[in-house]
Amino acid sequence: MEELRRRLGEIADLERAAMLLTWDQEVGMPRAGAPARAEQRATLSRLSHELFCADAIGELLENAEPRDELERDIVRVSRRDFDRARRVPGELVAELSRGAAEGHGAWSEARAGAGFAHFAPALERNLDLARQLSACFDAGEHVYDALVEDYEPGMRTAQVRAVLGALRDGLVPLVAAAGEVDDRVLRQGPSAQEGQRALVGTVLRAVGVDEDSWRLDDAEHPFQATMAINDVRLTTRFDQDGVEGLFGALHEFGHGLYERQIDPALARTPLATGASSAWHESQSRLWENMVGRSAPFWRWCLPHATAALPERFGDLGWQDVARAAAAVRPTLIRVSADEVTYGLHIALRFELELALLDGTLAVADLPGAWNEKVREYLGVEVPDDLHGVLQDVHWGEGLFGYFPTYALGNVIAGQVWARVERELPSLGDEIAVGEFGSLRAWLGENIHRLGRRRTPEELVQEVCGTPLDPAPYLAYLEQRVRASAALMP
Amino acid sequence: MEELRRRLGEIADLERAAMLLTWDQEVGMPRAGAPARAEQRATLSRLSHELFCADAIGELLENAEPRDELERDIVRVSRRDFDRARRVPGELVAELSRGAAEGHGAWSEARAGAGFAHFAPALERNLDLARQLSACFDAGEHVYDALVEDYEPGMRTAQVRAVLGALRDGLVPLVAAAGEVDDRVLRQGPSAQEGQRALVGTVLRAVGVDEDSWRLDDAEHPFQATMAINDVRLTTRFDQDGVEGLFGALHEFGHGLYERQIDPALARTPLATGASSAWHESQSRLWENMVGRSAPFWRWCLPHATAALPERFGDLGWQDVARAAAAVRPTLIRVSADEVTYGLHIALRFELELALLDGTLAVADLPGAWNEKVREYLGVEVPDDLHGVLQDVHWGEGLFGYFPTYALGNVIAGQVWARVERELPSLGDEIAVGEFGSLRAWLGENIHRLGRRRTPEELVQEVCGTPLDPAPYLAYLEQRVRASAALMP
Repeated sequence: MEELRRRLGEIADLERAAMLLTWDQEVGMPRAGAPARAEQRATLSRLSHELFCADAIGELLENAEPRDELERDIVRVSRRDFDRARRVPGELVAELSRGAAEGHGAWSEARAGAGFAHFAPALERNLDLARQLSACFDAGEHVYDALVEDYEPGMRTAQVRAVLGALRDGLVPLVAAAGEVDDRVLRQGPSAQEGQRALVGTVLRAVGVDEDSWRLDDAEHPFQATMAINDVRLTTRFDQDGVEGLFGALHEFGHGLYERQIDPALARTPLATGASSAWHESQSRLWENMVGRSAPFWRWCLPHATAALPERFGDLGWQDVARAAAAVRPTLIRVSADEVTYGLHIALRFELELALLDGTLAVADLPGAWNEKVREYLGVEVPDDLHGVLQDVHWGEGLFGYFPTYALGNVIAGQVWARVERELPSLGDEIAVGEFGSLRAWLGENIHRLGRRRTPEELVQEVCGTPLDPAPYLAYLEQRVRASAALMP
Repeated sequence: MEELRRRLGEIADLERAAMLLTWDQEVGMPRAGAPARAEQRATLSRLSHELFCADAIGELLENAEPRDELERDIVRVSRRDFDRARRVPGELVAELSRGAAEGHGAWSEARAGAGFAHFAPALERNLDLARQLSACFDAGEHVYDALVEDYEPGMRTAQVRAVLGALRDGLVPLVAAAGEVDDRVLRQGPSAQEGQRALVGTVLRAVGVDEDSWRLDDAEHPFQATMAINDVRLTTRFDQDGVEGLFGALHEFGHGLYERQIDPALARTPLATGASSAWHESQSRLWENMVGRSAPFWRWCLPHATAALPERFGDLGWQDVARAAAAVRPTLIRVSADEVTYGLHIALRFELELALLDGTLAVADLPGAWNEKVREYLGVEVPDDLHGVLQDVHWGEGLFGYFPTYALGNVIAGQVWARVERELPSLGDEIAVGEFGSLRAWLGENIHRLGRRRTPEELVQEVCGTPLDPAPYLAYLEQRVRASAALMP
């Protein structure tokens, strides 16, 4: 057990070092360093993969004698990861990585003018590789089962289909019923970057970021990277319209807080990260949306926003901003979609990738099928593939099974938020005066400290007292849309 | 050979990743990340050491069939490194690292008030470990031979003694003869940090720093770190008196340019760094002193300095600044010593560490011996050990054999500069108008591109046409002191 933990610790260190190589590349690396950095990243990934897949790890796992509950969890999770890692032949790993790089290239060229037909062969190849990857594992009911397992351990396609189907069926009428709301204050036109920076600084300090254990940097693609439980790094960007940078920072803060509040006893073990992609996303969405777009938040935040960006916020009451924050507006692009329409963007991607993988949809028919679903779910027309099927990089990089985690994250956030509202009845009053400590502590105690010690579904049951269920999220959205419409300026 | 290069490339990648962990720790890591970072650094060092010392590397070196001159050099240098690395038992490596950590602690406590007696046992232990390390290698003439070999491959104690002795004998009268010069403009009182930053930016751009391949950051201890030939990073600080930050930046630029101009064909091999510590130091000193303290440099730089820091430079002519830059002033602290007295600080450290190691000086007698030598060489009295034997961290960390490389670097810089002046007769005129391209190209072509393909002594012979010789450096200093005294304001 001692030796197993030593080796797992070494692998964890290598993975964090690889994370730093990535973070540095996005945040500050001189451009010309890119080719050498690619080699360094490849070497560290290969080494940590080799160290983890070694026969010796298999033997140590076989003979490990856990001395407590934590060590039992370490062995269980490591064994699951080990078995999965060993089933994929090195050649296929290399093929997948090449497919991702080439697919990314073809996708960029398609977007730059070559069009969907140019991207189609790379997409075919990535689908074929995904099917090969799936075939490395015991046959599930669907080829997709093995893919979703990489992000949501234990979850099956049938269940994802049921949850996302119910979500879609609840969202379509909600979108159709939503009235027009003026949300320009948050979304339109440039804001002074220094003002945005000051506002983001104030908000992050209030929610719990301190400079002893956190960093905030600018990067083109906002992300969160954790070097250690005491060293969490967020990035955001301030060149977007409105105050999108603020919502981006709160989103990444949600991810970061999850990592920051993991039990220190889990450090340097495979348990020291979130339970799943959906669980991670639930935490980012909770801070971005449930907190950041709420009326109490803007009661507290508006004076700070006005001080930082007087031209933008000077004439408004917090009611105006809260209404704008909850505005529903069917649009074409997922990453800038509002809270309500967002789930429909995901539902259609999930349905399409499922059909592509099981062969009921041909790649050549994908753009048409995409446009059809956008019309059906969102009621808008797709003018061209840039605003349609070519907007996301995921399929170009061979990422199938990842999209649903965004919506599952919202669903979980809805369940968690319902629980939080029951257990912390005065939270709204606290947020309205800028106090976030009890929410932070509740999330830490009930979710974050556990890391990967529970499967995603065990954790839903444990935290929320029910299985995965889209109803609370739908109820939350309905209530928010109704309440914000009723807010008088 | 293919496989050998693959493995050496992997090790090089790990070493660069370890460098990034260090750089990040000094430049931007949140404080609380330190304990986890220490683990990560230890893991990466241990892994790269293990990978390099593997039996398989020995066999590959044995059977390698180099296909060209470069591969012959790779095999030769790797074999030398491999043989040295394999001779030191893992236990001693661990002891040395523990001795360094504990010695550093004892040294800090001694400085914080506990006094030299508190540091003495740690120093004894480090000396004993250094003798054990030396005993791992074939007996040289002196226990010090094996230590200096770590920094200056092929150099022997007798030779260091001869060169540093001659340097000392030349410097003592030079210091005694130097007149009083007003150097306050460069050394005294705070300068506006924004002004210093602007000046350093202007100077670095002029000497050859571009943002495609370089970074400049603030750090408490200025240093240079290279992630790749195309990704070179400098740090400096702006909270020192005068414009020390500018000279620090030029110093680190000299180190960085060496790494930046290495032949790209050497990337990811053990040849991709400077020939030795002294050679590296020669390049930093050349840019800091030969260039940065020269009259032509200040003819070009003064208008920029005046624009950036008008209160400091506004009333002066370039002659005043050039005189101040060449001022000689015997003081107690090595790191802030001028160009001329600097070599004497090193000579006394070298003589003392040699005597400590061969047992002719007892640790208890060290402070007295130190103060005596300072009086003899520099003509000043040491008021307390903080300004004496406790000023440098090196011995606390068990670094014996390193000090001389600072002075050998100056000696080499003197020889290189004499050659440069012969080969680039119009360099002074170029520098006076802010052109540094021909110097950069000359250093790249004759020194930098070679990396570690020559031993330090071969490189001296090849570049300067003579063996290691302190005469050109002494002549340079004498000439500079004389010429600057003659400069009329």
